Amino acid sequence: MSSYLFLIFFSILISIVVILFLVKYIFSQEKGSEQMQNISNAIKEGAMAFIKRQYKTIFSLALITVLLIIIANYFGNLSKGSNIAFRYAGHVGIAFITGALCSGLSGYIGMYMAVHSNIRAAAGAKKGLNSALTIALRGGAVTGLAVTSLSLLGVTILFLIYGGMSNNDILIKEAPSLIVGFGFGASFVALFAQLGGGIYTKAADVGADLVGKVEAGIPEDDPRNPAVIADLVGDNVGDCAGRGADLFESTAAENIGAMILGVALYPVFGWKGILFPLVTASVGIVSSIIGLFFVKADDNTDNPMTALYRGYLVTTILNLIFIYFIIKSMFSGNLPNGGNIKCFYLYLCAFSGIALSYIFVLITDYYTSYKYRPVKSIAEASKTGAATNIITGVSVGMESTALPVLAVSIAIFASYKLGEYALPNIANGGFYGIAIATIGMLSSCAYILAMDTFGPITDNAGGIVEMSGAPDEIRLITDKLDACGNTTKALTKGYAVGSAALATFLLFFAYLEQVKTILGRPLDSVFPVDIGKSEVFIGAFLGAMVVFIFSSAAIRSVGKAAQYVILEVRRQFKEIPGIMEGTAKPDYANCVDIVAKGALKEMILPGIIPITAPILVGVILGKEAGAGFLMICTITGVIMALFLNNGGGAWDNAKKFIELGNFGGKKSETHKGAVVGDTVGDPFKDTAGPSIHVLIKLVSTLTLVMVSLFS
Amino acid sequence: MSSYLFLIFFSILISIVVILFLVKYIFSQEKGSEQMQNISNAIKEGAMAFIKRQYKTIFSLALITVLLIIIANYFGNLSKGSNIAFRYAGHVGIAFITGALCSGLSGYIGMYMAVHSNIRAAAGAKKGLNSALTIALRGGAVTGLAVTSLSLLGVTILFLIYGGMSNNDILIKEAPSLIVGFGFGASFVALFAQLGGGIYTKAADVGADLVGKVEAGIPEDDPRNPAVIADLVGDNVGDCAGRGADLFESTAAENIGAMILGVALYPVFGWKGILFPLVTASVGIVSSIIGLFFVKADDNTDNPMTALYRGYLVTTILNLIFIYFIIKSMFSGNLPNGGNIKCFYLYLCAFSGIALSYIFVLITDYYTSYKYRPVKSIAEASKTGAATNIITGVSVGMESTALPVLAVSIAIFASYKLGEYALPNIANGGFYGIAIATIGMLSSCAYILAMDTFGPITDNAGGIVEMSGAPDEIRLITDKLDACGNTTKALTKGYAVGSAALATFLLFFAYLEQVKTILGRPLDSVFPVDIGKSEVFIGAFLGAMVVFIFSSAAIRSVGKAAQYVILEVRRQFKEIPGIMEGTAKPDYANCVDIVAKGALKEMILPGIIPITAPILVGVILGKEAGAGFLMICTITGVIMALFLNNGGGAWDNAKKFIELGNFGGKKSETHKGAVVGDTVGDPFKDTAGPSIHVLIKLVSTLTLVMVSLFS
Repeated sequence: MSSYLFLIFFSILISIVVILFLVKYIFSQEKGSEQMQNISNAIKEGAMAFIKRQYKTIFSLALITVLLIIIANYFGNLSKGSNIAFRYAGHVGIAFITGALCSGLSGYIGMYMAVHSNIRAAAGAKKGLNSALTIALRGGAVTGLAVTSLSLLGVTILFLIYGGMSNNDILIKEAPSLIVGFGFGASFVALFAQLGGGIYTKAADVGADLVGKVEAGIPEDDPRNPAVIADLVGDNVGDCAGRGADLFESTAAENIGAMILGVALYPVFGWKGILFPLVTASVGIVSSIIGLFFVKADDNTDNPMTALYRGYLVTTILNLIFIYFIIKSMFSGNLPNGGNIKCFYLYLCAFSGIALSYIFVLITDYYTSYKYRPVKSIAEASKTGAATNIITGVSVGMESTALPVLAVSIAIFASYKLGEYALPNIANGGFYGIAIATIGMLSSCAYILAMDTFGPITDNAGGIVEMSGAPDEIRLITDKLDACGNTTKALTKGYAVGSAALATFLLFFAYLEQVKTILGRPLDSVFPVDIGKSEVFIGAFLGAMVVFIFSSAAIRSVGKAAQYVILEVRRQFKEIPGIMEGTAKPDYANCVDIVAKGALKEMILPGIIPITAPILVGVILGKEAGAGFLMICTITGVIMALFLNNGGGAWDNAKKFIELGNFGGKKSETHKGAVVGDTVGDPFKDTAGPSIHVLIKLVSTLTLVMVSLFS
Repeated sequence: MSSYLFLIFFSILISIVVILFLVKYIFSQEKGSEQMQNISNAIKEGAMAFIKRQYKTIFSLALITVLLIIIANYFGNLSKGSNIAFRYAGHVGIAFITGALCSGLSGYIGMYMAVHSNIRAAAGAKKGLNSALTIALRGGAVTGLAVTSLSLLGVTILFLIYGGMSNNDILIKEAPSLIVGFGFGASFVALFAQLGGGIYTKAADVGADLVGKVEAGIPEDDPRNPAVIADLVGDNVGDCAGRGADLFESTAAENIGAMILGVALYPVFGWKGILFPLVTASVGIVSSIIGLFFVKADDNTDNPMTALYRGYLVTTILNLIFIYFIIKSMFSGNLPNGGNIKCFYLYLCAFSGIALSYIFVLITDYYTSYKYRPVKSIAEASKTGAATNIITGVSVGMESTALPVLAVSIAIFASYKLGEYALPNIANGGFYGIAIATIGMLSSCAYILAMDTFGPITDNAGGIVEMSGAPDEIRLITDKLDACGNTTKALTKGYAVGSAALATFLLFFAYLEQVKTILGRPLDSVFPVDIGKSEVFIGAFLGAMVVFIFSSAAIRSVGKAAQYVILEVRRQFKEIPGIMEGTAKPDYANCVDIVAKGALKEMILPGIIPITAPILVGVILGKEAGAGFLMICTITGVIMALFLNNGGGAWDNAKKFIELGNFGGKKSETHKGAVVGDTVGDPFKDTAGPSIHVLIKLVSTLTLVMVSLFS
């Protein structure tokens, strides 16, 4: 075991060294003109003020929750004796707090790096595209590496402390399910971080766009718009802090779920089955670091995406190679009768996971890029106004769920079958195949996250350049990077949904294992979740419904908060003379403040729904109904998130397509219709959609932590 | 048995007599001025031409399908010997054809009565509100009674022919599952009728509104709008023909599902359990007739809904009384040990179903009427434009799914438990409770359908009055009735979704019974549909996805067809001078023709999805996965339909609320924003939503008919 542990800690060490190097690199870059710095500072202050307030709220809620968890786990396990119950409750509680703190830290790092990289990327654009691209990507890379390393470190250390270090089989096998609290803590913080940030960013964006672009007819990021700083702050608190926390808990949840499956296969693989996810994750970090250093763009390129794709390709190829050797080294000795060919089957599972992430990226690109039919059809529909734009966009978004669902279904089916071939006659062999696929999919997580955080950094850099009145050639560079950042943001969301679907399937399995343990049934028995039973059907029905009302609450919150912004901007235009002529400065800070207050107020209600609903279902209708709730909530959640993310992305790019001069170009009636679609899509793709990723993982970790309470 | 059969046929006879009386009454009414008749004739011709073309397409598709069913059932049952296989295949095939023909006939009757009642209701408005109301409701009543009687007659006769008349237990028990083809045939026609009609009506409506109201600034139903006749035709082909076929198959599916459950309880109730749904349905027809004659409105009333509610109340109370005696007379002898109290438990099941229909009506009213918060919030959001109107509307629509899902869940839970109390230690007793609840809910179907068809009749009457330039006081009457019709249409949709949810649960049960029969397992054994198995999960995943892509296809079809209309109307405005001044007549017929062609072309793709998908899942992934598909498709379908129907209804009434003078009234910027929302809601509430009702019943009857093919 020690050599694998060494590998894990060594990768984390490498990651820390690289992070320090990248941070030093970024902070050594130029910060540009004083005007640019002023703008950047305003963004920084707004973002930091918001995150501090937000964390205060979140951690107050977390404190109540951890008490409830500890009490629930104490009394739920009391039948095993008060000592054991106390130990369980304590472990789960500590894991929750650790997870919550790490998740919060991940979000903070993401935002801190973003607000310091944006100004430097903006200044770097003066030197050329590659310079700006490198700064923005390296800023993102710090987040990507920090998040994945932190997740890996947290899970590994908890595993070792909770029994992994002992030589006691029983303790080792018990440890993974005690770490579930870590995943729940992470999901808990991620949910509110994503909701609050998502509401903030879109309320500001929608508000700024509606009054600025549509009513006053001034361009995006125009300094005359009082909400423009709030809009730029929003990109940081929503996309960086939120997504960082989201993917932090994705990796944590996936690792924990796979480890619990490893426990189920303990008779075959021993501790290796449990440690395998962590080893792969550590190798994935190293691959991502290497991939990052392969990114280099020609200063004259029109499409910087090519450079980013190159790094992704390198990461993927390295992962494909590394994982092969890991599987061979860890498992071949434990697979009698044709160990090599069976190892290869397991390897194919990982391959199908990696392939799935590529396919998701391709499908998302198809549905959200203006090179293809879907976005073009929305743009064309805008010719007949906003209504047909919306109708077509909704239709495209719903259609876009088909291929990803098919792809996930095929990946699950294939890796299940491959797992069965590799581990014939072994209970849950097929599920371990799915676990390996999930591990494969998430192996490139650090790189993907770097690309994702790249998005808001370039977005902000563009905003700073625009607002400081920089020359056109620099704007051209940041525009290119901004477009590229929009693409990476959309792709990452696809990746996040796909991995959430797989990770939840693992956690669902873990839930069933847990139920069997509680009921005292053998772990290789079957606990069927029979959807034909009326209470399971009801649980499933409610699980699907929760996705709809959660989305409703999230979207409504944006609408409400946006209306505050709109009224404030209108007020400023009316009461502060000279804004439009550029002779008076709008009161940016007041807008920032109004959005922050609104977002924090509005995030509570949608956040409470997914926390209370599964507990109520489990307590009232029982464990099997709880499982039905979990599964159908996941299914509906994945599909709804695809609809919201892709629909929103498609509307956004349909507008961009028109702005490039198609169908009448900017300021035409067609464009006005498209702006409505873009605005509607904003809360879909940046608030409700990403929050649903978190929701489905939250529900699965929550039910796991609370299952001992269920009737 | 014969006395109950006598009751059934006697009710059908009464229904026929009343239908003849109502038809005579309607055709004896005045037809108004020549100008009104011209308009009415144009509508009539357009509608009849469309339905003829549509039926030609549908029945060609049905012919292919029936051949496939016969072949599938022949080979699927071949293991039982070729004679039996031949008999099965023949029975299912004949049932399919009968169901398809009856469903088509229902739609035709609905439309025929509507196009002949509209002009008479318009003329009746001259005499006063009550006269117009009575004509419109009686026109609707013909449809309501014809549809429910036809469904009852078809199922009863097939049951008797297929074995019900014999004294052979085995044949009697076999008969209900052979009638399933009737339900499938009905669903098949209903799907295309609803899709084609729904696309037609909304393409015309969206097209007419966008160019007429928004671009040219002329009011709704203005004769200068070239698409105005197509719009009025659409109300008939979509709302009358479509909804008639929809509810026809709802009652058929529910009766068949409940009869199959009756077979499962044969040891307890004998043939009575099978006949109970038919007896209740027949009594429900009589109650509805009596209820209809209680509708009488004061000519000066502001709210004709009160009169309609009175009839509904009478129908419900009569049903509550009748059902009590039916249950007592049919079941008390078969329930040993406290038969009376157990009968009362069963009666409470029926009560919970009836209560559920009331609750659905109340919830729908809350979410779609402008008296309450949801619609008002949409209207208010329109102050900041179309985008916030859409965002708020989507949010309201999603929120509106919560209470209905909770209500259905409680009804299922309660009637299941009551069924278990009534039939302790008897397998499937709980499910029979759910069956009784469903029967209770659908007992007032004839009345509900009459109210529903009342909607498009008054809508058309209003259009005729408007176009013929009638005086203001007559318009005021038709406006009141039109508003009332909008309400009844919305309420009926809620009722249709709720009953579809319950009916599908019965059919799901029937599916499991069928699977057990095929596998040779005892009927009181459990065939678990374990959602934890990977292939069942995949089936479920695909089932949810199909709802999204079906909705996408349906909505897109409207968008496409609407664009033809928009371009045609713009062309006419440009090429025919004098339309706007009223000196030249637009070419209505060309618009009608363009929409018809477009609708028929566009209905094929969305129609094919739900027919092929479940078969593929069943054949590739097996019977259990097929069941997973069916259940999750139902769950997602019900919720999606609620979202689409209620969202659409809320947008519609938010616009109406503004038109009453709120937030700036007609022609304000707020109103323009609300018109966009109304237009977006049109395909939601009148095409995709109602088609999903049919979809979920189609999937359940289809899987039942095809289950012998599943692996």
